[in-house]
Amino acid sequence: MMPSAPLTLVNGAVQDTLPGLDRGLQYGDGVFRTVRVHRGRPQWWATHMCKLAEDADRLAIPAPPSAVWEREVDTLLATAPAECVLKLILTRGTGPRGYRPAAQPEPTRIVQVSDWPANIEAVAARGAVVHLCALRLAEQPRLAGIKHLNRLENVLATLEWPPGEADEGLMLDPSGRVVCGVSSNVFLVRQGRLLTPRLSRCGVAGVARQQVLALAAQLKLPASESDIGLDELLTADEVFLTNSLIRLWPVARLGERHWGEPRLAAELRRLLDDAA
Amino acid sequence: MMPSAPLTLVNGAVQDTLPGLDRGLQYGDGVFRTVRVHRGRPQWWATHMCKLAEDADRLAIPAPPSAVWEREVDTLLATAPAECVLKLILTRGTGPRGYRPAAQPEPTRIVQVSDWPANIEAVAARGAVVHLCALRLAEQPRLAGIKHLNRLENVLATLEWPPGEADEGLMLDPSGRVVCGVSSNVFLVRQGRLLTPRLSRCGVAGVARQQVLALAAQLKLPASESDIGLDELLTADEVFLTNSLIRLWPVARLGERHWGEPRLAAELRRLLDDAA
Repeated sequence: MMPSAPLTLVNGAVQDTLPGLDRGLQYGDGVFRTVRVHRGRPQWWATHMCKLAEDADRLAIPAPPSAVWEREVDTLLATAPAECVLKLILTRGTGPRGYRPAAQPEPTRIVQVSDWPANIEAVAARGAVVHLCALRLAEQPRLAGIKHLNRLENVLATLEWPPGEADEGLMLDPSGRVVCGVSSNVFLVRQGRLLTPRLSRCGVAGVARQQVLALAAQLKLPASESDIGLDELLTADEVFLTNSLIRLWPVARLGERHWGEPRLAAELRRLLDDAA
Repeated sequence: MMPSAPLTLVNGAVQDTLPGLDRGLQYGDGVFRTVRVHRGRPQWWATHMCKLAEDADRLAIPAPPSAVWEREVDTLLATAPAECVLKLILTRGTGPRGYRPAAQPEPTRIVQVSDWPANIEAVAARGAVVHLCALRLAEQPRLAGIKHLNRLENVLATLEWPPGEADEGLMLDPSGRVVCGVSSNVFLVRQGRLLTPRLSRCGVAGVARQQVLALAAQLKLPASESDIGLDELLTADEVFLTNSLIRLWPVARLGERHWGEPRLAAELRRLLDDAA
């Protein structure tokens, strides 16, 4: 009889629990990555490893070498479906009571596999319907860009629309500038140029966003990070969302604004999809 | 033979682990309380229960009735030292992948007991040395006042000073207004009046803060919540910090500013200490 596939490794051991005193739980004191597994291989792996190390470094959490993650990911993927979602979590581990971390933290690694979401290709084909969130992202430069475990703003934002009524939410900062989707980054296309919000005050700088910027450079497509008002977004030729799972979703509708057939976005998605 | 005291209950069961997929870990999606146990009884229990329910409600997490917590706390305290720290955590439980919560969340309850901190009375007697934190608290009205599990700002703030060099850190908002200590609330005394920062944009509204305000009302001591600049704090007659464990610490020094023997703060601490 086939053993059922292990779902979670904690510090390399097959288990689905972690210490209740872990600082990941107590304070959201950690970082994570969500990775697409395609044909049995994690896409954009090197970039994910690099970003995980950078994020951990900004929080002064010692990150394990990528070889450690790779061994654990290989173990899990050996029995996982060829198309699935990989989540890596790195927390500062346990420690004494209180906010101050242990002098020599022993981080906790968690690797989880879950099912591939059913709707990703369908939304890519028809274009995403986007809800404009009322909740504004707070500005915290010390945490901006980091994919950390303090995600209550994102959780509360999803409660603004019933499931099925929109595919994603768009989030603004307190001044009304566009920041990102609830779980994606956002780009707009204007006269053949790509624009994406600067993420120095809030938002997560995703790996797919980085891939799009790299791809643009490769294609000699002008692209820049800047402050983007909602009006600018609404008058763009095309708008699209990115993250590691969806890769790229053209936006079909935001409130009353409808966009037609995507041209550049559709082309970029094809190119992204083939990237390792 | 005496069984060794259980340290943690998760949903009423003696265990020290929780599901790795718990949203408390994945997103910091939950709230908590830190409670002083004095002579075997949790101090300010009714207020803690009330605040826990209020905080959970603001995040749309269904809170269990206090009788459920009480049963679990009684179980743990039966074998715990008469002076100890109780921590209650309520998370939104597990759920499908992604930020959107389950339609009917089944929250996770965690109750933990830990040792009473050694230095509380000593610092209360000599006065606290306070570090002025460079990290500014971000303004998020939707989360302001709530004791939630997104505490990376507090964690990073503690890294600003070496242990032993200060007893607490003072945190400002982006405009330079005083908000709170890293794990306490702050009050100042000016001409017999109490002032404490308004917490509508950031900070945690602690139970000890509420007790001090209630005590002031009882004593007919004028007290108000308002915007407080750092200058105002530095020129105050007395400054003190509050939380459920320390109850009240007079501040002896902040940067170059030294305060003399506390008068009102010392009196308030005596009165607070006797409160159930």
